[in-house]
Amino acid sequence: MPLPNPVYYPPFNITRTSHVVLTSRDLEASREFYERVVGLVLSDRDADTLYFRGLEEVCHHSLVIKRRDATECEAIGMRVLTEEELEKAAHFFKGKGLPASWIEVPHQGRTLSVRDPAGTPVHFCATMTTKPRLYTEFELFKGGAAMRFDHYQVPVTDVQAQTDFYAEMGFRISEYMALDEKLIATFMFRKPGTQDIVFLENPGPRLHHFAYTVADAHSILRACDIAGSMGYGDAVERGPGRHGPCGVLFVYLRDPDGHRVELFCDHYQLIDIEVEPVGWDVRKPGLSIRWGLPPQECWFTEATHFTGVPVAELEGKRGPLMSLERYLAEKALAKAGS
Amino acid sequence: MPLPNPVYYPPFNITRTSHVVLTSRDLEASREFYERVVGLVLSDRDADTLYFRGLEEVCHHSLVIKRRDATECEAIGMRVLTEEELEKAAHFFKGKGLPASWIEVPHQGRTLSVRDPAGTPVHFCATMTTKPRLYTEFELFKGGAAMRFDHYQVPVTDVQAQTDFYAEMGFRISEYMALDEKLIATFMFRKPGTQDIVFLENPGPRLHHFAYTVADAHSILRACDIAGSMGYGDAVERGPGRHGPCGVLFVYLRDPDGHRVELFCDHYQLIDIEVEPVGWDVRKPGLSIRWGLPPQECWFTEATHFTGVPVAELEGKRGPLMSLERYLAEKALAKAGS
Amino acid sequence: MPLPNPVYYPPFNITRTSHVVLTSRDLEASREFYERVVGLVLSDRDADTLYFRGLEEVCHHSLVIKRRDATECEAIGMRVLTEEELEKAAHFFKGKGLPASWIEVPHQGRTLSVRDPAGTPVHFCATMTTKPRLYTEFELFKGGAAMRFDHYQVPVTDVQAQTDFYAEMGFRISEYMALDEKLIATFMFRKPGTQDIVFLENPGPRLHHFAYTVADAHSILRACDIAGSMGYGDAVERGPGRHGPCGVLFVYLRDPDGHRVELFCDHYQLIDIEVEPVGWDVRKPGLSIRWGLPPQECWFTEATHFTGVPVAELEGKRGPLMSLERYLAEKALAKAGS
Amino acid sequence: MPLPNPVYYPPFNITRTSHVVLTSRDLEASREFYERVVGLVLSDRDADTLYFRGLEEVCHHSLVIKRRDATECEAIGMRVLTEEELEKAAHFFKGKGLPASWIEVPHQGRTLSVRDPAGTPVHFCATMTTKPRLYTEFELFKGGAAMRFDHYQVPVTDVQAQTDFYAEMGFRISEYMALDEKLIATFMFRKPGTQDIVFLENPGPRLHHFAYTVADAHSILRACDIAGSMGYGDAVERGPGRHGPCGVLFVYLRDPDGHRVELFCDHYQLIDIEVEPVGWDVRKPGLSIRWGLPPQECWFTEATHFTGVPVAELEGKRGPLMSLERYLAEKALAKAGS
Repeated sequence: MPLPNPVYYPPFNITRTSHVVLTSRDLEASREFYERVVGLVLSDRDADTLYFRGLEEVCHHSLVIKRRDATECEAIGMRVLTEEELEKAAHFFKGKGLPASWIEVPHQGRTLSVRDPAGTPVHFCATMTTKPRLYTEFELFKGGAAMRFDHYQVPVTDVQAQTDFYAEMGFRISEYMALDEKLIATFMFRKPGTQDIVFLENPGPRLHHFAYTVADAHSILRACDIAGSMGYGDAVERGPGRHGPCGVLFVYLRDPDGHRVELFCDHYQLIDIEVEPVGWDVRKPGLSIRWGLPPQECWFTEATHFTGVPVAELEGKRGPLMSLERYLAEKALAKAGS
Repeated sequence: MPLPNPVYYPPFNITRTSHVVLTSRDLEASREFYERVVGLVLSDRDADTLYFRGLEEVCHHSLVIKRRDATECEAIGMRVLTEEELEKAAHFFKGKGLPASWIEVPHQGRTLSVRDPAGTPVHFCATMTTKPRLYTEFELFKGGAAMRFDHYQVPVTDVQAQTDFYAEMGFRISEYMALDEKLIATFMFRKPGTQDIVFLENPGPRLHHFAYTVADAHSILRACDIAGSMGYGDAVERGPGRHGPCGVLFVYLRDPDGHRVELFCDHYQLIDIEVEPVGWDVRKPGLSIRWGLPPQECWFTEATHFTGVPVAELEGKRGPLMSLERYLAEKALAKAGS
Repeated sequence: MPLPNPVYYPPFNITRTSHVVLTSRDLEASREFYERVVGLVLSDRDADTLYFRGLEEVCHHSLVIKRRDATECEAIGMRVLTEEELEKAAHFFKGKGLPASWIEVPHQGRTLSVRDPAGTPVHFCATMTTKPRLYTEFELFKGGAAMRFDHYQVPVTDVQAQTDFYAEMGFRISEYMALDEKLIATFMFRKPGTQDIVFLENPGPRLHHFAYTVADAHSILRACDIAGSMGYGDAVERGPGRHGPCGVLFVYLRDPDGHRVELFCDHYQLIDIEVEPVGWDVRKPGLSIRWGLPPQECWFTEATHFTGVPVAELEGKRGPLMSLERYLAEKALAKAGS
Repeated sequence: MPLPNPVYYPPFNITRTSHVVLTSRDLEASREFYERVVGLVLSDRDADTLYFRGLEEVCHHSLVIKRRDATECEAIGMRVLTEEELEKAAHFFKGKGLPASWIEVPHQGRTLSVRDPAGTPVHFCATMTTKPRLYTEFELFKGGAAMRFDHYQVPVTDVQAQTDFYAEMGFRISEYMALDEKLIATFMFRKPGTQDIVFLENPGPRLHHFAYTVADAHSILRACDIAGSMGYGDAVERGPGRHGPCGVLFVYLRDPDGHRVELFCDHYQLIDIEVEPVGWDVRKPGLSIRWGLPPQECWFTEATHFTGVPVAELEGKRGPLMSLERYLAEKALAKAGS
């Protein structure tokens, strides 16, 4: 299983993953959820669109939600350093024979809309309108007090191909999971955290979740507590817990439309080139989950579809990562047998 | 369903629940677990006994673990204010025709050993040997840094009878659960927290769990993290979460012998007499569990037996509180049907 | 220096210190400060009075603020267990030849107004009107999210006499400070914390501060952060820090009228009778202050006067506890001399 | 006052500031302090050198302490992306007529030693030996559990010149302080935090402090608590508090040799180019200090000298930032006058 070589001088300079564009059947429910449970700030709204940002963010939006009859993701967003890099990006995608066109997006500078080889719709821009940074306006903090957009997970059927392509664009691997010499998950970064984008072997491309950083464990528990007291207790799909790769403390929430958002803290910084990617053998139990119960099966199977993008199915069955249902069944079996 | 009247001038003055005496098949494993994961301090040990206390405690022990071939609880312990109250306690139990005898217990003052009407073995004493209070010796803090013994839960088949008896001894009800006018759980206190002893309708008497306070949410997560990194990840049986009654943030851990210990924070103070007990209707979903997943079935069914005390079974089946297995099955059914 | 013997069967049963009644020149400023910085809940208000309680409290008020031209304290409040104990209290004070009269106080049961031997006005009652307990209404949490009233400090000129009197009423000593065999501070408790009332040698009687518990360190820092962002940064008079006696993590804030309120966490439980009072030798530097800088001189000298109660001055000068001004002067001197 | 234009395509790619090399009169005292109070990990030691790294760090060292009779800083360290960038760095410094030579440093790749125009000794390297990342080895966490090296402050007499030079190397300004159109402090970054290096108008060049990130407020308080219980209470020179620029929660500690180390959390991420530098007017009180007391005068005046580098003095007196001594004097004066 060859990990792609890191590319230190990529064809264009992506600085970070920056936003997602979702659709919702009920904007009022979305607003309530993201403002009160997640703790985002509403930067702007028009009749059919909500624009949110984290408390720490000055860029106009990191989460856009549009009113639709469907519950989908229109695109994931990335930042490049300058307008010059945008031009290079267009050149790169066109050179690969991949779709790439310039679009107008409110509150963003010139935006390049592309498809990656798996079909994932990606928007690149170099600037956004700015808004005040509210990270010391403590009286505005609500719920999890989400600070900033950090990353997203995109399930794909061919993790190796997707990883190779993103490596060519300068993404490096912080951690990965393999099974019998086959890549089944990669955590890739451009900014100095552990991940900007995560690929997991599953039907795709889809948007599994997007993630915001929070200040500390307290914020994660407060988000859960607020969810519980608002009657959104069921929204807490997985966690709080700590997962093996990247070692983060996390909680996964489902929003009123079923989109999945992660709040997390405690990841590490990764910049230096002497650091080798960390590999996880998914056959070893207890490695990828440090404590607590495995995720429900739905955490593995449910994800948001990209608008107009067909979902490729896996050949064979879902991978070896343990689900809660299987865990309980195996435990009951072991007990019956003993 | 009549709640017993509070007794403000009880026949003798129990000040708090104070300790449990457990047995273990492997003292070294016990020691490692309670010192490193829970964060207790070893006050003393002899060839076959470990004596632990919380970081905040000056009394000699709140957890005693004896080497045995069986995994049991020998007794739960309570404190009375003075030696004079001990005499009154003996008088009270003998007057009820219940077993009550004086025993010698190392590191404790004169000790009265009794059985309550359900058969639960209880030890009363007024004093213990003292040890240094280590709550500001921060370098000694490990794992959950458990501060002090707080309460235990004793499942019994007749919650009403047990509650009436303990009320007569001066225990007051902070919160309770009822089903169709039948008491199925009571949280009873002597010291000004929410609970010294909890009764839940289930086969009993058994020791379901005992609980230590911790300083904050951080301590609860640290206990889990240490458990995980020591390979005890499976010990995290339920939580971290927040349950409805008493509103505490909790985690339940299973020790190497299967005894269940709770770490929790965020309970409230209850002293004043104008405060009415809080009732929970167990039929209403989402009330008793605020967020996250319900406990595994084993949380309801497994508990430690008292040495030499037969366990009465429930007439009919286990109560209506939702288990994780049932939750997942109902969810799968609903999905299949939709 | 004789510490009074603990009285386990006192003449009447005080259960805890419960409230203070202050006066303010500006009720709106008071309301803003206590709601947004301290995080209290406004239980009620009329044209000239604000009634606050902590998030955890069901009793109607623990802080009453009345509009006046002066900035004073009308009385400190205590709870007794039952109405019967109130009668015993009246009997006790009258037997001592001390003032004791029945008064009507809104939202309280029958109230006994007394003066202690130092002249401190104290109100006793057995019940209050109740209000909802809001400790799990997380969306209402503001600033320090103060949970419950805990204690107050009353400077007096004769700490020994005051301590002896309160010991007779059943208060026990958790910790104390002495100088050359003279008591200069006592921390006394009825409920099982470390303190309900603190006496410090200084001109008095006055109200030095009253204190609320908070959930954790995070709450203390949040109170400071909110104070800072509201322009109340100067209100943070001392701390956050940890002081030696009782080992608590604290911050002292000055409200808009100059009344001093403490927010703290991490104290310990004290119930058992085998525990000896902890003594501090105030001559030993670094003992009473664990880290950080000593309090400003104003922390020692400024306190709220009781309405109509003359303040006795100390014979000789203020005691030996180190102030910030003296610390900096001594440090400058040492540096100049070296 | 012209802020230098940001340079997005700098002459060589500095990725972050990475380490400091200090000298100490007592290596054992240093070791105790950095291991137990700050919570660093000892990566290696030889007879006369200690190498420390943060819990999150895989690079071999971020703090090097050498035994000497003097208490100095030998150099500050920075990382460049690749060996190729090192060559470009050498070319850049030589082109400026500044000292630049290749040196051998244990556990580092090829290292370039330079002087900046102010005379500050800087070491650049592209790689170090790696060690295990210990950020999830929770049982190893001690004191403040310092995670990773973040930045340092270098006082200089001409902040404008220093800022212009570092801007040319690609450092951008996140925040700055000005007085009458004169730059008196700049916070400059390469990695996406708020600062890699800070310049403050003061005699220099010297090393004012170096800083490690910690996970949360809890870690900052734990460092103080451990310092206090080890008898290092005086080491807590300033804070915990929150300062205006960058909004971080911080504490400044003095190590046994008097070197100053900061632990902090809650800074923000800064990558995007549309974000304007934040300016602070140092004449406005309360802006740069959000709550609590100003720093002691020694925080402004004391700093570590660079080995063999003369310190230029300021023309005129120290700047306008408020010290604790002045604050208390002005307060006493105001009180006397009122």
